Amino acid sequence: MRVALLQSSGRPGDVAGNLRELDEAAGRAAAMGAGLLVTPEMFLTGYAIGDDVARLAEPADGDAAQAVAGTAARHGLAVAYGCPERDGTRVHNSVQLIAADGARLAGYRKTHLYGAYEQHHFAPGDRTVVQARLGGLTVGLMICYDVEFPENVRAHALAGTDLLLVPTAQMHPYQFVAESVVPVRAFENQLYVAYVDRVGREGAFEFVGLSVLAGPDGTARARAGRGTELLVADADPALLAASRAANPYLADRRPGLYGSLVRTPASQPAQGVRVR
Amino acid sequence: MRVALLQSSGRPGDVAGNLRELDEAAGRAAAMGAGLLVTPEMFLTGYAIGDDVARLAEPADGDAAQAVAGTAARHGLAVAYGCPERDGTRVHNSVQLIAADGARLAGYRKTHLYGAYEQHHFAPGDRTVVQARLGGLTVGLMICYDVEFPENVRAHALAGTDLLLVPTAQMHPYQFVAESVVPVRAFENQLYVAYVDRVGREGAFEFVGLSVLAGPDGTARARAGRGTELLVADADPALLAASRAANPYLADRRPGLYGSLVRTPASQPAQGVRVR
Repeated sequence: MRVALLQSSGRPGDVAGNLRELDEAAGRAAAMGAGLLVTPEMFLTGYAIGDDVARLAEPADGDAAQAVAGTAARHGLAVAYGCPERDGTRVHNSVQLIAADGARLAGYRKTHLYGAYEQHHFAPGDRTVVQARLGGLTVGLMICYDVEFPENVRAHALAGTDLLLVPTAQMHPYQFVAESVVPVRAFENQLYVAYVDRVGREGAFEFVGLSVLAGPDGTARARAGRGTELLVADADPALLAASRAANPYLADRRPGLYGSLVRTPASQPAQGVRVR
Repeated sequence: MRVALLQSSGRPGDVAGNLRELDEAAGRAAAMGAGLLVTPEMFLTGYAIGDDVARLAEPADGDAAQAVAGTAARHGLAVAYGCPERDGTRVHNSVQLIAADGARLAGYRKTHLYGAYEQHHFAPGDRTVVQARLGGLTVGLMICYDVEFPENVRAHALAGTDLLLVPTAQMHPYQFVAESVVPVRAFENQLYVAYVDRVGREGAFEFVGLSVLAGPDGTARARAGRGTELLVADADPALLAASRAANPYLADRRPGLYGSLVRTPASQPAQGVRVR
């Protein structure tokens, strides 16, 4: 399956404008043969929009979701997009996956919120592994900081994810994550990772770009620069199978030795309660 | 603490020669201010020595260990060295840590054996986290393939390891591990990793060198080339503290979500029994 990565910050605060940019990018991605288009984190609304996060948050089947479904169906490709999601009084930092026929395939709520800004504006999700079948692959969803925790990507590998979609808002000075952590995640778990970042300055943040489709061999199948860019690359099941045969990490694991990873330290509050 | 990395394959099969090389390197390392010298995996005997693995294996307090203790005490620095270790009828792929006064501080037996060669010649260890205090730091021990599993390094971070010593025999074409996986392990766990490789050809293997002391910021504090080399770099507690404050991965973990990592799949044999 060919995957298109839309590295762009859109127009923060302008949902209608971002839906137009998404539709235009979907047309170009489809013309390049892509079966899936992935946006950055919070592409729909902007990331550093303060209290507009809550104002612009919609349910997973809200008006914006229906507009994206129209885009997917119009251009005949699946779309994974980042957005704030309202669930009653809670707002989640989410990614929604829409099929090429406009049907809603899956939604994921960021489980590992980053820093004071996110912890103020969002409630964390409680489900680590969200998957869907797409183009013959098992596709998984995750957001930004989530991928920096090896546990989260390992959980996907154990659940059979072939292609992990990671909308992100990775900021200066953490380009090491885009450059090194993401390819290592792909290698150590033997899957593809599509890591799609915002660009430029927004409020206090400066995003690093450097979006990448990382392959199970640890190489960048496509790598963006620092500016707005639409790039495509293939998630190839044959490469995946060959790489997994050569790197049997999952078979060589010894889960009986990893008990300390799931114990909650006495000094740490229960999951979902943030420390900072 | 200044750490010296002895990137060398010594002379496979020649234990006395390797003890001499170790003593000579310890003298040079001490002269450069190092408080600790780390060798590659199986430095004492050679790695691709076939049935000589069992013949040359000694108990943890055997003759070779006493010779290394003499080297440590003579030059006044700690030594971590790779060797085959005999325990009754079992032979382990081990690393021994000797203090600067010649006392035995700790020994670790590789838990994740790599490939058919190691699985034929060694029994796996069953203890993931082995630590000792050294130069004001908590030092941990691990070997080669172990470090490629994020679970193992995470267990060390959770147990408070500051500096992880990883004798290795990393071979072509896996230089990605030395170049990328090891620095990412240091970053995602906020600790130092001293990864010390063999070089050149030995039997069917071609070792990649590229030994590194990786810092908690993901940078290489020192990086070797492909040939025999003794390099030194500092594991700096101040950098460690600053980096940990800026990257609170351990505090932001949600262990309640990682349950799948410790479940043994029904299709997988119990720990310690190898599949291949």
